[in-house]
Amino acid sequence: MRMSRYFLPVLKENPSEASIVSHRLMLRAGMIKQASAGIYSWLPMGLKVLRNIETIVHEEQQRAGHIPVLMPTLQSADLWRESGRYDDYGEEMLRISDRHGHDMLYGPTNEEQITDIFRAHVGSYKDLPLTLYQIQWKFRDERRPRFGVMRGREFLMKDGYTFDLTKEDALHAYNRHLVTYLRSYERMGLQAIPMRADGGPIGGDYTHEFLVLAETGESEVFYDSEITDLTFGDRTIDFDDVGACAGVLDEFTSRYARTDETHDAELFAQVPADRQRTARGIEVGQIFYFGTKYSEAMGATVVNDQQQKVPVHMGSHGIGVSRLLGAIIEASHDDNGIIWPEGVTPFHCGIVNLKTGDAEADAACEALYDSMVALGLEPLYDDRNERAGGKFATMDLIGLPWRITVGPRGLKNGVVELTSRRTGESEELSPEQALLKIAQIYGKAAS
Amino acid sequence: MRMSRYFLPVLKENPSEASIVSHRLMLRAGMIKQASAGIYSWLPMGLKVLRNIETIVHEEQQRAGHIPVLMPTLQSADLWRESGRYDDYGEEMLRISDRHGHDMLYGPTNEEQITDIFRAHVGSYKDLPLTLYQIQWKFRDERRPRFGVMRGREFLMKDGYTFDLTKEDALHAYNRHLVTYLRSYERMGLQAIPMRADGGPIGGDYTHEFLVLAETGESEVFYDSEITDLTFGDRTIDFDDVGACAGVLDEFTSRYARTDETHDAELFAQVPADRQRTARGIEVGQIFYFGTKYSEAMGATVVNDQQQKVPVHMGSHGIGVSRLLGAIIEASHDDNGIIWPEGVTPFHCGIVNLKTGDAEADAACEALYDSMVALGLEPLYDDRNERAGGKFATMDLIGLPWRITVGPRGLKNGVVELTSRRTGESEELSPEQALLKIAQIYGKAAS
Repeated sequence: MRMSRYFLPVLKENPSEASIVSHRLMLRAGMIKQASAGIYSWLPMGLKVLRNIETIVHEEQQRAGHIPVLMPTLQSADLWRESGRYDDYGEEMLRISDRHGHDMLYGPTNEEQITDIFRAHVGSYKDLPLTLYQIQWKFRDERRPRFGVMRGREFLMKDGYTFDLTKEDALHAYNRHLVTYLRSYERMGLQAIPMRADGGPIGGDYTHEFLVLAETGESEVFYDSEITDLTFGDRTIDFDDVGACAGVLDEFTSRYARTDETHDAELFAQVPADRQRTARGIEVGQIFYFGTKYSEAMGATVVNDQQQKVPVHMGSHGIGVSRLLGAIIEASHDDNGIIWPEGVTPFHCGIVNLKTGDAEADAACEALYDSMVALGLEPLYDDRNERAGGKFATMDLIGLPWRITVGPRGLKNGVVELTSRRTGESEELSPEQALLKIAQIYGKAAS
Repeated sequence: MRMSRYFLPVLKENPSEASIVSHRLMLRAGMIKQASAGIYSWLPMGLKVLRNIETIVHEEQQRAGHIPVLMPTLQSADLWRESGRYDDYGEEMLRISDRHGHDMLYGPTNEEQITDIFRAHVGSYKDLPLTLYQIQWKFRDERRPRFGVMRGREFLMKDGYTFDLTKEDALHAYNRHLVTYLRSYERMGLQAIPMRADGGPIGGDYTHEFLVLAETGESEVFYDSEITDLTFGDRTIDFDDVGACAGVLDEFTSRYARTDETHDAELFAQVPADRQRTARGIEVGQIFYFGTKYSEAMGATVVNDQQQKVPVHMGSHGIGVSRLLGAIIEASHDDNGIIWPEGVTPFHCGIVNLKTGDAEADAACEALYDSMVALGLEPLYDDRNERAGGKFATMDLIGLPWRITVGPRGLKNGVVELTSRRTGESEELSPEQALLKIAQIYGKAAS
């Protein structure tokens, strides 16, 4: 993308309505614009990151055999009356009446709707296991929406639902989700720690929240420092292998890690003192096995191999997709702006032309640009006739992990400058070497 | 995808609620499930086609330099009061009150919201031209939703908005959109004819609807038969070239083609009698230049090169994305089911195993499957232990354009059967030849 043809409305001033850094930087970098309280338009660069996160979530879910569907945002209240949640859900549920006076609602979650799909179409244990998921907009009418996309009202969420014949199978689905979540967050450059969560009115041990450590997190968290040494990495795993998935669960959840909601001071005291950590965290996902709560209430049954009708065991598993942009920025920024992890960056590399209009500099930039595009990379080329200082400030603000600076003086010596946004370190390289390095970083084969 | 692991709930019976063939076939093929009147859940295979259509629309818009954004589904009523449309829009607008009693609405379209973004961030003619577009869910509370996704209440639409300094520039943006629409529809296997549309209260000559000819179309259309000979094909075009884009407009709109809303019997009589055609059509898109209607009402101005503040010239340009699934099926089916055009098919090729459990047949199917995946193709392999007749009926119903049938008898002679869904013609080929042919059809290089 050439900056002269893009729509990247960066702000020079700090917007007064933003109290946390991710909200401030998303506004300043021209990623979002508030439409109403807690409701945002996604401007081009914000949308690119959102789509990158969605793509990672889709790929990791489908790698595990989970199947995408898409349910409508508006639901009939009747389904929620069946489950008994229509009256239980408080003012956060946005209730709507259509022109014929039918009670509708903007879905805050989709257990009822997916259970309705299941019971309409699945009748035999032979069709199990089944995991259906979607990435869809939801609405919760927060009383005090704040922190930008971190606690918005209209928000994008991945919600997955598992249907299994037995509790044992459902727990395998639970473990499988844990693995997909670990993989997803790591690809986004995040360390998200699974912590024992509160099962709410249903209770039970089978729910974990995933928390990203950040000073601005809404939850206080307590954990054994050994847990931050764990990474899933690029190990391969067979998602049908019950033991392997259970092993990952054990590995990542056997050490103490809880939020204030489930914190147990006595248990925490048993962690060696030098490994006890207290911090703040942002919740970016949750997995939850809840048994037959909805299947019994709504008649979602299958016939088992004994010809008996039994309610299916279910779980629901969520990732806060739009909220993740905020979480990533909270975890990865400095005074000058955002620092995108390579896995989600809106553009792979910035190209700064120090002297737009200089024939040699223009030609070198264009050649780099074309070569990157040919490799399947997306560069952002600042081709505007602006001062170098302003171009650098914009590039730092929007946080592309790599920048190539091209100017007449360097070109006389056959070099350009490659700069890491994270470390600030620069090196002089020939344009070809710089290109090769960028290609290697992103796993593209430079021919 | 292996059928045994997929969620493809085909129906044996014709659903009674469906009065037109596309609605019936989408339900029978397990593509959608009604959630409420005019509101549908997208089941896995329906969602795949929807995403394929979206991808084509995105690619063609971005090829022309148009920039994607995403606006929220819920809007504040205040914006619509500014434009004066809040009261004008009738009962089709779904009006909502949030927990604090603020008037909201589920956006039926987005002229106000995009104008608000524009006026907040753009102030100079140097930032023009600008085209922002989105693909987002919208809601119109139709009194009698019907025909499945063809006239739903919650529907997916691409809406693009152009901002230009002058009427002349805005008409170039109009012509550019016409080109992108022609390309998009052709890639979906559709012939969509631009017809002069009714400008409504604003009036003006600068609006065309795109209609797909189909017996079940809601509009009566009148046209010169020469128009159906036109195709855009794979010609290249420079979207910055004003003359070239205007030339395409001339080529595709100079012959008589109107709907009943704009039909002029006298003009139509001037078409040579043997070329006069009357038919029915489905509207799948519309382009519209409306000048300064919203920019004046909402103060969307730029400073021109004379330092004068002038309202920008705008246009809005829509494609009915979810409705297109219905339109494509109306235009492409037979008694046995859907016939997907290659450009949008949910899977590139079906593989039918005539004898699941036979070691040789299983191995041949798996080898074909793996080879297709390695080429970047998505096959649907019917690996279930069902009778061949049922497998063929399902493949015909869901309409994959190509099917490879693998059985022990053919394998003894070293052949499989490759069948075209459209013509029904089969040929016996070696597995390698069949693979090569499928790869060629989809433009994948078999190595």
